[in-house]
Amino acid sequence: MALRFTVPEMEAFLAEVFPQVEGMFGIDRMDEELLVMRLHEDERHLRPGGTVSGPAMFSLADVAAYVATMARIGRQALTVTTHCSIDFMRKPVAGRDVLAEARMLKLGRSLSVTDVLLFSEGTDEPVAHASLTYAIPPAKG
Amino acid sequence: MALRFTVPEMEAFLAEVFPQVEGMFGIDRMDEELLVMRLHEDERHLRPGGTVSGPAMFSLADVAAYVATMARIGRQALTVTTHCSIDFMRKPVAGRDVLAEARMLKLGRSLSVTDVLLFSEGTDEPVAHASLTYAIPPAKG
Amino acid sequence: MALRFTVPEMEAFLAEVFPQVEGMFGIDRMDEELLVMRLHEDERHLRPGGTVSGPAMFSLADVAAYVATMARIGRQALTVTTHCSIDFMRKPVAGRDVLAEARMLKLGRSLSVTDVLLFSEGTDEPVAHASLTYAIPPAKG
Amino acid sequence: MALRFTVPEMEAFLAEVFPQVEGMFGIDRMDEELLVMRLHEDERHLRPGGTVSGPAMFSLADVAAYVATMARIGRQALTVTTHCSIDFMRKPVAGRDVLAEARMLKLGRSLSVTDVLLFSEGTDEPVAHASLTYAIPPAKG
Repeated sequence: MALRFTVPEMEAFLAEVFPQVEGMFGIDRMDEELLVMRLHEDERHLRPGGTVSGPAMFSLADVAAYVATMARIGRQALTVTTHCSIDFMRKPVAGRDVLAEARMLKLGRSLSVTDVLLFSEGTDEPVAHASLTYAIPPAKG
Repeated sequence: MALRFTVPEMEAFLAEVFPQVEGMFGIDRMDEELLVMRLHEDERHLRPGGTVSGPAMFSLADVAAYVATMARIGRQALTVTTHCSIDFMRKPVAGRDVLAEARMLKLGRSLSVTDVLLFSEGTDEPVAHASLTYAIPPAKG
Repeated sequence: MALRFTVPEMEAFLAEVFPQVEGMFGIDRMDEELLVMRLHEDERHLRPGGTVSGPAMFSLADVAAYVATMARIGRQALTVTTHCSIDFMRKPVAGRDVLAEARMLKLGRSLSVTDVLLFSEGTDEPVAHASLTYAIPPAKG
Repeated sequence: MALRFTVPEMEAFLAEVFPQVEGMFGIDRMDEELLVMRLHEDERHLRPGGTVSGPAMFSLADVAAYVATMARIGRQALTVTTHCSIDFMRKPVAGRDVLAEARMLKLGRSLSVTDVLLFSEGTDEPVAHASLTYAIPPAKG
């Protein structure tokens, strides 16, 4: 299905609805097959040893599933995460951005399910793997 | 089993290992049966409408499972989250702290499993429910 | 909220909708606070060593969440599991029935979330812990 | 990494360790990149309407993650599932086998993480998506 946002439109939308996290995330690629988002390295997200924290990786997976859903359904401010299951599998590489590859597994009328793999930039083995469900509010008649 | 930290000792330990989140969390109760932690309301964690964000709730559940584990095994800096499954069930009440009730379901040699219920302070129905697994590094001979 | 089934009514309903598993499960207690169901020991569910298999424990958690939901909403044949997260924490005790304690965490219009703890009968430490989401079809106008 | 079983060897191993489910599963493909397993249509697994049950899909995902792990580490009878998160996304097509595509995301010394997508044979959209963790016992010195 055709996406309802260009990358600059989506970036403007994110800055508008989540001003608290402005500058935290970028969109590297957004098309029907794959969304790639980036968590910019930033000392606020770091753990001792310089690796990205679990909550920061959760945030990246969560925003990627949100963007993947919004790109398909258009602006729906009330769309909310109802479930996330995340496996942290490897320690992220210090000093690298973390990238999220998000694929929409299901887009129904009332929910979306998105699969997200997280990688340290430039590496092949995922640092984390998440599945997120977003609830989509009923369309107004 | 007896806990290896008092509340002030645990607060000092958290400030030491996670300086980035200093002031974000408090410990209301910590004993063998139950741990209660608090996410202080703070505009950094808010979503439009004034409710606490999903990532901030994840952070609270994650730190509560960490504290519950550390309280039992003692300082083990390399203990890391390997899995979290979280259901977001209700919108948190605006303007209230979010409290986490954490119960240790299993403490094995190599992993702990903690159940966490999150509530808006002063309400009875949970806003979220999480289960977290921490991997405990092998003790050095 | 008052339940819409008595135990014998629920047992008859299960036998009607799931004839394949007749005799596999029993209901020990069903009230507003707690549902307790039982997986009868049966060699079909066993693994080498005589312990109950993971799929049999999943089945018990799944049917318990279904019964807890049906008890509150009444017969809705199209209600289906949309998510299950389950931690297997200990080996079940050989030769004992497995019991499920199910608590409804959320009952909304379109979904229910149920927490389930599984125990080998006569023991205190849970063998598994699950959280299940059921999707409830829209009521017909 | 090279696999330690051929398909006939793995089928013989499964028949040996899980005699209760003999004939329930088949292996369509097993190599380093991908494992494809099959749940043979069988009235024991069916729900009203002729679709495959949730527990039967869980069983398929669980055995696929087990086979993917065993194929890499060799016979380790004590390897057990510690976690499964599964999303049921669509109703399986009546009268078709269900196929599992399993990919190993992580193989560590003490655990494996496997991603599994389930499809009704001949269709493109997954009916379910699971992530499973197996605990691998320490090698004997």
